[in-house]
Amino acid sequence: MANSESGDSVVDRVVRVLEAFPEGVSSLPLGELAARAGLPLTSAHRLVRQLAEHRLLEQAPGGKVQLGLRLWELVNRNSPTLVLRQAALPFMDDIHQVLNQNVNLAVLQGDDVLFVERLSRRGSVANRAKVAGRMPVHISSAGVALMSAQSPHVQAAYLARFRDPAGKTTTDHVRQVLAAASSHGYAELAGVVDPDTWGIAVPIHDRQRRAVAAIGVVVPLAEARMQQLVPALKTAARGIGRQLGAPGM
Amino acid sequence: MANSESGDSVVDRVVRVLEAFPEGVSSLPLGELAARAGLPLTSAHRLVRQLAEHRLLEQAPGGKVQLGLRLWELVNRNSPTLVLRQAALPFMDDIHQVLNQNVNLAVLQGDDVLFVERLSRRGSVANRAKVAGRMPVHISSAGVALMSAQSPHVQAAYLARFRDPAGKTTTDHVRQVLAAASSHGYAELAGVVDPDTWGIAVPIHDRQRRAVAAIGVVVPLAEARMQQLVPALKTAARGIGRQLGAPGM
Repeated sequence: MANSESGDSVVDRVVRVLEAFPEGVSSLPLGELAARAGLPLTSAHRLVRQLAEHRLLEQAPGGKVQLGLRLWELVNRNSPTLVLRQAALPFMDDIHQVLNQNVNLAVLQGDDVLFVERLSRRGSVANRAKVAGRMPVHISSAGVALMSAQSPHVQAAYLARFRDPAGKTTTDHVRQVLAAASSHGYAELAGVVDPDTWGIAVPIHDRQRRAVAAIGVVVPLAEARMQQLVPALKTAARGIGRQLGAPGM
Repeated sequence: MANSESGDSVVDRVVRVLEAFPEGVSSLPLGELAARAGLPLTSAHRLVRQLAEHRLLEQAPGGKVQLGLRLWELVNRNSPTLVLRQAALPFMDDIHQVLNQNVNLAVLQGDDVLFVERLSRRGSVANRAKVAGRMPVHISSAGVALMSAQSPHVQAAYLARFRDPAGKTTTDHVRQVLAAASSHGYAELAGVVDPDTWGIAVPIHDRQRRAVAAIGVVVPLAEARMQQLVPALKTAARGIGRQLGAPGM
């Protein structure tokens, strides 16, 4: 693979350009894109032009650069989340219909959870567009539910490298939270963004008994009826798990 | 940019790998991926390994290769469709709630429409996962609505290159369909996939009066109440258009 003078490959540089857009920032001026990607302006200009020829990047209003609709199409028509989402959506919809709560579907990515699907409470669809967000494992109920269902050595390795950048939580506290979630079969956490909400999530096991995802709800504290929510989530998780790896999926 | 012996650049080859996955096929054996991308097996192997190091590609079950969750995350967290979808989703949800019909949002891509968002009729969420699909303009109500609102020279150029690969439709017929849609301000077409359904769509104009998208519904023929649907869609399209380009979007 061809390398630049600085020794990085073209693939490295393409990845750095794609990663240069911060979450929620859909377009950047070329100069800022080059700086964020750590590329000289001339290299960035040439690479952006090449990617734009294939419509992986596009010109945005004001001369800015944005990710291209063609790239969005290629990635979403064969989404790596498709099998999981297709298995989960009917069950997510059931919970959404019966309980009228925000329903999330998440997978583990390192020490974060990545939200791959979301159905919002009726009348609040704004969140719908915001899939592909991340949260640290220890502050999200989906993260705790998923991590608590991993093998002991995966959990131990996570705890060994755990450090709360905000300095609010200790490793011992996270260990207790994981142990409680593991013993209950679900995780419950006070809302991080909104302290008047409560997150409740359960792990989803595939047919090989691996905890591959979590399904959860975010509910106003006043409406958090555990006796309804937990059985509904556990039932949904079992149904989704049965679909995963079933013939034809 | 570095070129291979055959003269194509690394960026070209990356694009060919991403484009090699046919719609709805989420993973391919390496040999088939190489063949579809038109790459020698050794080059494909090296490129796949490099892309996998950055998690733009991943190993799928059975030794196959699939698009990586990291690529999905990068593209969706800064989706080029985000502004349009955020503007449209509350209005799509209104139609979904009031009329309980499948609601689609589409943009023009060459001679196709690309569906960027979909809300399915309650109880039929299977379709939800299938955004990023395409249809030829002339067989989709969203396509006809969008094309009929383009400038006369864009429509003329489209008609000049029009040829129905199925041999069912003539250019004259398409011209009449576009003229009718333009004069009515909406398009109505019998279902292609299911002949017992009816597609109805209207163009969405942004603040510069450009037709940038279409919103439409797909309804069972027996339920196609034009007097309800068309005003609801036109109202929604005006609301979405007001949002596009509004301050803060």
